[in-house]
Amino acid sequence: MSATRLAGLRQCMKEQQVAAVAVNAGPTLTYLTGLHFHLMERPVVVIFTMQQEPTIILPELELRKLEGLNFPLRVHAYGENPAEWPSVFSEALRDMGLSGGTIGVEPRQLRFLEYGYLRTACRDGHFVDGSLLFSALRVKKDSQEITCMRRAVKIAEAALEATLARVKIGVSEKELAGELLLQLISHGSDMPLPFSPIVAAGANSANPHSQPSDRPLAVGDLLLVDWGASYNGYVSDLTRTFAIGKLDPLAEKIHTIVQQANGAGRAAGGVGVACGEVDRATRRVIEAAGFAVNFTHRTGHGLGMECHEDPYIRSDNNQLLEVGMTYTVEPGIYLPGFNGVRIEDDMVVTEAGAESLSTMDREIRILC
Amino acid sequence: MSATRLAGLRQCMKEQQVAAVAVNAGPTLTYLTGLHFHLMERPVVVIFTMQQEPTIILPELELRKLEGLNFPLRVHAYGENPAEWPSVFSEALRDMGLSGGTIGVEPRQLRFLEYGYLRTACRDGHFVDGSLLFSALRVKKDSQEITCMRRAVKIAEAALEATLARVKIGVSEKELAGELLLQLISHGSDMPLPFSPIVAAGANSANPHSQPSDRPLAVGDLLLVDWGASYNGYVSDLTRTFAIGKLDPLAEKIHTIVQQANGAGRAAGGVGVACGEVDRATRRVIEAAGFAVNFTHRTGHGLGMECHEDPYIRSDNNQLLEVGMTYTVEPGIYLPGFNGVRIEDDMVVTEAGAESLSTMDREIRILC
Repeated sequence: MSATRLAGLRQCMKEQQVAAVAVNAGPTLTYLTGLHFHLMERPVVVIFTMQQEPTIILPELELRKLEGLNFPLRVHAYGENPAEWPSVFSEALRDMGLSGGTIGVEPRQLRFLEYGYLRTACRDGHFVDGSLLFSALRVKKDSQEITCMRRAVKIAEAALEATLARVKIGVSEKELAGELLLQLISHGSDMPLPFSPIVAAGANSANPHSQPSDRPLAVGDLLLVDWGASYNGYVSDLTRTFAIGKLDPLAEKIHTIVQQANGAGRAAGGVGVACGEVDRATRRVIEAAGFAVNFTHRTGHGLGMECHEDPYIRSDNNQLLEVGMTYTVEPGIYLPGFNGVRIEDDMVVTEAGAESLSTMDREIRILC
Repeated sequence: MSATRLAGLRQCMKEQQVAAVAVNAGPTLTYLTGLHFHLMERPVVVIFTMQQEPTIILPELELRKLEGLNFPLRVHAYGENPAEWPSVFSEALRDMGLSGGTIGVEPRQLRFLEYGYLRTACRDGHFVDGSLLFSALRVKKDSQEITCMRRAVKIAEAALEATLARVKIGVSEKELAGELLLQLISHGSDMPLPFSPIVAAGANSANPHSQPSDRPLAVGDLLLVDWGASYNGYVSDLTRTFAIGKLDPLAEKIHTIVQQANGAGRAAGGVGVACGEVDRATRRVIEAAGFAVNFTHRTGHGLGMECHEDPYIRSDNNQLLEVGMTYTVEPGIYLPGFNGVRIEDDMVVTEAGAESLSTMDREIRILC
């Protein structure tokens, strides 16, 4: 663990007035300790307080992962019988002198499982949603983190280019999704991928969360691909929409509008700009063109170690962008039963504005 | 949702004396409703009671997934602003007349996020660990489920055979793991995989949860591969250990012992046999050979929609095996700093005993 990150955590704890935080297996645990654990039936929890050395509770089976750690960590390991686990949690918290107070947790990461052990071990503890604290800790990426994200974007772009070479009339969405998976791995994405790629053609592209089907590509389809790669713990998340042969003028029109909306959203970001303003920038373009009701989701979301994290690019979010924040700009127009378009880029806030990490063409590209 | 599965759930609820269950995005939700949702920042919860139609709380963005449902489901959808979500949860529970009573949840699936909304919406509710209930519901697989698991095993076996063809001195664990991923996808595994394959050679094979490294294969290594595939919502999880060139006699010896232990474990299963007895069957072989302390984990775990689920094959587990239960048998011997061996098969309990779904050679195979 870098001393900087521990100090950052304690600063956030102080601001949010929590006595302790309990972090279970997941990105924040990795961010703070450099350790990797899977979220499985054997809970792993690290507890941080303002003064004490951090304490880890983990299965004996995982003890070897602690070899060579470069910071002090108190270790409480448990065996294979779950009946013994509550006493290990209790002892760990007793050793830290943690018997009560406000304890921050991650609501999207902590499970009823870990919560149950923690609550039993610390009956006077007041467990609270630590989202703001953990967001403040991780939301501004340093240059090493940006480097990883940039690489995750490059891997994704190269993998899609290689996949597009295989697109032809009659190929199914599922076949293209499979090819894209292979290309992502071949081009160096770590596993697991941040999410299973969406490959959606024709009417399926009008469903923002479509799953790849056996539907074959046909002339006149819009082909929407939403995909990403993982690199060294960081992810990318991109979308492009292509033309299969000659398009209906309406399909062309909505692509042009979304492209303009994407450009407006990318240009809107910068230090001190509210997230809501970035959302309004894309939405204004789509509303002005008469498709307000067909842009059914927020403009974007933060991304980094997780594919969806703060800052959310939603009209009602007044959070101000700061240097190092990273987020997607992904406006869309969905015409049910016809076609849909989404164009998504990954942005980083810099002193000079907001830079797109992704550079792949946004112009409509005719594939067959 | 099949009427059978809903009736099965209500039978389990009656036996466990819960008034309701709250199931969030994950395998049980899919098992009961056929619907697929990701576990993300927007919670999806289905609530079942003994009498009422089930109720789903979900984002508006996901409403299209409910089209064409063949069973009655009350729907409460929320928009993009989290500030409004508590009132949607409250209204949903009020509509069901659910203001208190014992409510079963899945401790490894429900997060502090969903728990927070549920608790606020049902302040007199007593939320309890519903593990036994959900285990009883899903632990015995029907023939359709076994068919999917059999397919997941066949995909995994074929993918590994194709990968082994590429093994040679000097190739790294990471390169082999990448090739295995490609082969798993090419052979028809769904994504995500049940877990990232373990490829561990030489001293790394002595770490049960080793992660693939840049270490190149060398003569005398044991090469341990722990891998699996996903098919239609069901998984496989296998391990084989190979020889790279001529082995040290001790490496050969521990392979022979583990192979015998695996055989004893596979033979031990059957209707009415305690899980603990299967564990003891493998452990006896390894203990008799003098390696008790080097078999550092339980003999196995259940698998099905999840890679780790009931029944756990642990010495202290008195649960009796029943027809349709599926579990792994995976004894191992790990000699730190030297080499390790694990041999893992996927079993299904039948009227006639326990059948291995996996049939790949367990004899030591010399690869280069």
